[in-house]
Amino acid sequence: MLFVELLGVFAFALSGGLAGVRRRFDIFGILVLAVLTALGGGMVRDVLLGITPPRGISDLNLIGTALVGGLVTFWFSGTLARARRVILVADALGLGAFAVTGAAVAIEAGYPGVEAIAVGMITAVGGGVLRDVLSGQVPSVFGRELYAVPALLGALLTDCAHRFGWFNGLVQWMLVLLVFGLRVLALRFCWKTPLPRRLEH
Amino acid sequence: MLFVELLGVFAFALSGGLAGVRRRFDIFGILVLAVLTALGGGMVRDVLLGITPPRGISDLNLIGTALVGGLVTFWFSGTLARARRVILVADALGLGAFAVTGAAVAIEAGYPGVEAIAVGMITAVGGGVLRDVLSGQVPSVFGRELYAVPALLGALLTDCAHRFGWFNGLVQWMLVLLVFGLRVLALRFCWKTPLPRRLEH
Amino acid sequence: MLFVELLGVFAFALSGGLAGVRRRFDIFGILVLAVLTALGGGMVRDVLLGITPPRGISDLNLIGTALVGGLVTFWFSGTLARARRVILVADALGLGAFAVTGAAVAIEAGYPGVEAIAVGMITAVGGGVLRDVLSGQVPSVFGRELYAVPALLGALLTDCAHRFGWFNGLVQWMLVLLVFGLRVLALRFCWKTPLPRRLEH
Repeated sequence: MLFVELLGVFAFALSGGLAGVRRRFDIFGILVLAVLTALGGGMVRDVLLGITPPRGISDLNLIGTALVGGLVTFWFSGTLARARRVILVADALGLGAFAVTGAAVAIEAGYPGVEAIAVGMITAVGGGVLRDVLSGQVPSVFGRELYAVPALLGALLTDCAHRFGWFNGLVQWMLVLLVFGLRVLALRFCWKTPLPRRLEH
Repeated sequence: MLFVELLGVFAFALSGGLAGVRRRFDIFGILVLAVLTALGGGMVRDVLLGITPPRGISDLNLIGTALVGGLVTFWFSGTLARARRVILVADALGLGAFAVTGAAVAIEAGYPGVEAIAVGMITAVGGGVLRDVLSGQVPSVFGRELYAVPALLGALLTDCAHRFGWFNGLVQWMLVLLVFGLRVLALRFCWKTPLPRRLEH
Repeated sequence: MLFVELLGVFAFALSGGLAGVRRRFDIFGILVLAVLTALGGGMVRDVLLGITPPRGISDLNLIGTALVGGLVTFWFSGTLARARRVILVADALGLGAFAVTGAAVAIEAGYPGVEAIAVGMITAVGGGVLRDVLSGQVPSVFGRELYAVPALLGALLTDCAHRFGWFNGLVQWMLVLLVFGLRVLALRFCWKTPLPRRLEH
């Protein structure tokens, strides 16, 4: 599970770092944004579950991976030309990895069911919300392509798999890929979700 | 007390959902914003008091009520034409309900006095701040009509009522109405609060 | 240590209050922003370390100092003409005080090392981030003059000093001044940090 989590951390660090590159933050700003995006969701999860101090401030593997992700975006910023697209794909990968590991952490901490599903979603969505709020954009969770729904589904299925005793390394990877795939397909084919009726004025 | 809390959750879910409707978020964005607005203040309260996991991620009554509030704003968005006004009134109702229940939760958790007052205010104000920050607006707590003051008063009086053993269902409703009434009157009659002197440049 | 902490609270309350004055918030908005800026970093620190309720909602010395700081900015707003500069200097002082005391609180709570350094930085940077997000600006931690680095250095040296048994009142003040001095020098002489390469489009 650690590997999936590190993958999510790295993916979100890329998306956070690139958001900083686009806003022309300096190297330290980019690193701070990368770390907050990568570890923010997990820290909120741990605090909600009463796991203190959260691993995001104590686990050097996580912190190091997030920093490396941030440095990569800084060094290769010229090459990562279509930054917006790369941000979205990295973000989708992080979404999948965190929805599954977030729910799994809650289950291990003794909170299966509603809590695991809610916490999985919060872990998956939290880092991206932090990134967008801090760089002055409307969070992508409010965008029109499916974002919260794949995360919700990933957390829900993780909880189901645990309940039926089917949760193992393979299932975990399949769930991560499912969430990632759904999100990428939604972006690629512009799956639009319903808008409210226009307000009269 | 549960009923007052559910009322506050529903009112804040309406205000959050409508803020999403105004920003033309899609259905899932509206639901996420409604849930965060409705449950965010209480989750911050629980985390500050060390009550983990907070009820906002485990209590299906709260989560369900928030979701229904969000769905209502989505379905009736055409009818809720004067959205800005409805947001403000729903927000005032949530403000009252949460100032009182927030302080009461702190007292029950063993923290009367300063903590109860602070936590009551944070519960009341927190959800709206989240809503405004996430939808890219200056939080209404910084607006010129009384906002923080009625919440502070409600939390303070709840603490006093508890201290003198007068806290019961009736008193609770009167305090909720007091906060609600103060806020609505401030909006209706544009009670302005003092501004700082203009800065010289 | 209490005195250093109160100094940090007061300095951040000034910077928060002045940010409110510049945005023409009313008196209560200014006080709320001053208190959140002054106590927000420490509250995040306490929640991360599992110290609940955080002292920011229970310690009347801290709350009172923050309120006085906010009132000062309200009353003297006409005189504090060059507000932007005063905000930056007050913020630098708070940065130093909180980097050192934040790390020290973590060490006392039994988390030296990585946790202490991370928590020191978060305490120092957190209040300013809250202030900037709530008043609709890009957080100064993402600005081009060194901000996170002096805080990191202060927390790191505090942890080292503790490790070697050298941490006392004098060393503490020297570390606060070091962080403050670095930040002020970076502002004064526009020490620029590297930017990423421009993105191709």
